[in-house]
Amino acid sequence: MGLGWIRLDDGSNMRGRRKCRYCGKPAVVWLGYANLGLCAEHYVSCYENKIRRMLEKHRIRGMLMVAVSGGKDSMALLGTIGRISESLDIDVFAFHINLGIGEYSEVSEETVKRFCKDVRVPLIIYDCRKDLGFSIPDIVKRVQRPACSVCGIVKRWVINKVAYENGFDFVATGHNIDDASTYILKALMTNDIYSLVRGQEEFSESKPELRLVGRIRPQFYLSERENMLYVQLTNIPIVEDQCPYSRRATIHKYKRAWDVLLKINPIAQINIVRVMKKIRSMMAFPEPKLVQCSVCGFPTESEGGVCTFCRLMEMMKNSHN
Amino acid sequence: MGLGWIRLDDGSNMRGRRKCRYCGKPAVVWLGYANLGLCAEHYVSCYENKIRRMLEKHRIRGMLMVAVSGGKDSMALLGTIGRISESLDIDVFAFHINLGIGEYSEVSEETVKRFCKDVRVPLIIYDCRKDLGFSIPDIVKRVQRPACSVCGIVKRWVINKVAYENGFDFVATGHNIDDASTYILKALMTNDIYSLVRGQEEFSESKPELRLVGRIRPQFYLSERENMLYVQLTNIPIVEDQCPYSRRATIHKYKRAWDVLLKINPIAQINIVRVMKKIRSMMAFPEPKLVQCSVCGFPTESEGGVCTFCRLMEMMKNSHN
Repeated sequence: MGLGWIRLDDGSNMRGRRKCRYCGKPAVVWLGYANLGLCAEHYVSCYENKIRRMLEKHRIRGMLMVAVSGGKDSMALLGTIGRISESLDIDVFAFHINLGIGEYSEVSEETVKRFCKDVRVPLIIYDCRKDLGFSIPDIVKRVQRPACSVCGIVKRWVINKVAYENGFDFVATGHNIDDASTYILKALMTNDIYSLVRGQEEFSESKPELRLVGRIRPQFYLSERENMLYVQLTNIPIVEDQCPYSRRATIHKYKRAWDVLLKINPIAQINIVRVMKKIRSMMAFPEPKLVQCSVCGFPTESEGGVCTFCRLMEMMKNSHN
Repeated sequence: MGLGWIRLDDGSNMRGRRKCRYCGKPAVVWLGYANLGLCAEHYVSCYENKIRRMLEKHRIRGMLMVAVSGGKDSMALLGTIGRISESLDIDVFAFHINLGIGEYSEVSEETVKRFCKDVRVPLIIYDCRKDLGFSIPDIVKRVQRPACSVCGIVKRWVINKVAYENGFDFVATGHNIDDASTYILKALMTNDIYSLVRGQEEFSESKPELRLVGRIRPQFYLSERENMLYVQLTNIPIVEDQCPYSRRATIHKYKRAWDVLLKINPIAQINIVRVMKKIRSMMAFPEPKLVQCSVCGFPTESEGGVCTFCRLMEMMKNSHN
């Protein structure tokens, strides 16, 4: 939730003093990192153009699966791709995972279903309880790992498996600049060299021989606030509640630190992501070697040859009570 | 000014609730990054031991020149080295540069003189106006560079020249963890790959063939607050005023951001310095090539063969009015 921009239509004293760069109408938003004022209409088209350029840059076409949680980021992504997919020769499908986290998951599934119906995007739903045999709370109760870590492992595996088995060319996810920059900030502040070396990328290639479907993160340089504003201006329904597990996650503390850092320098999040990317490219470090998991056949970096997801499932079977 | 520790003797409600780890007396300080409470006596000895270990680690002995501005960091350094030098086989000399910045520089010189007399450390004084021909304000008025940049160039050159010409084995400076971590934070947030690749080190070797005297920064992992507390507990006189130029420097904004970051993680400054050191060691990057300046004969990275200091002096001659 960076302070890199100021909403001008919320009664702040900036109102009416900034104009849209493209049409001269009063601006509804000021993007501090770009010194750019925009009216609602031009904000929406600029936002969609950024996503479009990212998809073009990485030559995304064919069958695209957009993973949607129901939150502002992924819903803004689906809304945008839904609008621009035809001109890009993309067949877009939404994919939602019902994690089985009580009321939160029910509301999320309903919100996603309703929006997909509205915008006529076909939706695939994966239900953890039915399709996997366990909900996220089931797993969290029985293994010694933080909930967000468990959920991340399950989602990554399920998304790739479903995309691969249904013949998708690419998966798009709603990863934003707040996520990318906070991942780096936290790794720096905790001396976590592994995460820094590994990094996060806007795009990773498909590797069919390893059953890995390519991944694109079209909002990699867009902030949570920009996604939220797009959602508001285009009337996309979203789940406002936070996941009950994630409230306790320490990553939020690091995320909030950006409020202070962006006041010093509004482009700081984009800069830290870019400079770390340059640094990684200068590092004499071998790419993590991917192999096929000996249990599920999907890719893993694990040296033992069994992926983290399968080890989680193994633990679930053994701890059965 | 990190929040990595809390003074307990200032009437805060922590008073008396923490005990010194070594003697059980009420603690006067709580070092959050180390989970360590200490009484005054053990704080002073722990602090001095950290400096001692840094000097031993890099085998500092012989003639050591301690560069002293009069501020808390360098005065704490001189105080400590003065106390422990004999047992380390070090001949310690203080070195002060009078920058010619009005009242500020006069007070600084007086404070340094008084302290050196008290602790019986010989003091060498370099007077920019007399010895160089210009004060810092003279130079700042005539060249297109920020004051802190000009001052840094002059100080680095003068310190090395005086140390080299007087046969010193090493120079020690009062660089602290707030400086080191803020240098990195700012470089990350401004996409300054040059500064990140270059880095700052706790120690750099002598290179006699290039007239370069080795540099040790014994307080590299100590914070401004730790230095201040040492100064207070050992009654070292210091210059409380800030340099009138540095007040405007943007680096202070980045420095203050640590107040927020250290509340999230009290060891964050040390971690960011350590992890960037690891990253640099993994980077395929050639060491900057040092050559002798064709004007002054002291080392420079400049490809033109003339060092930044000499170019500054050249500008001063040309702009004479």
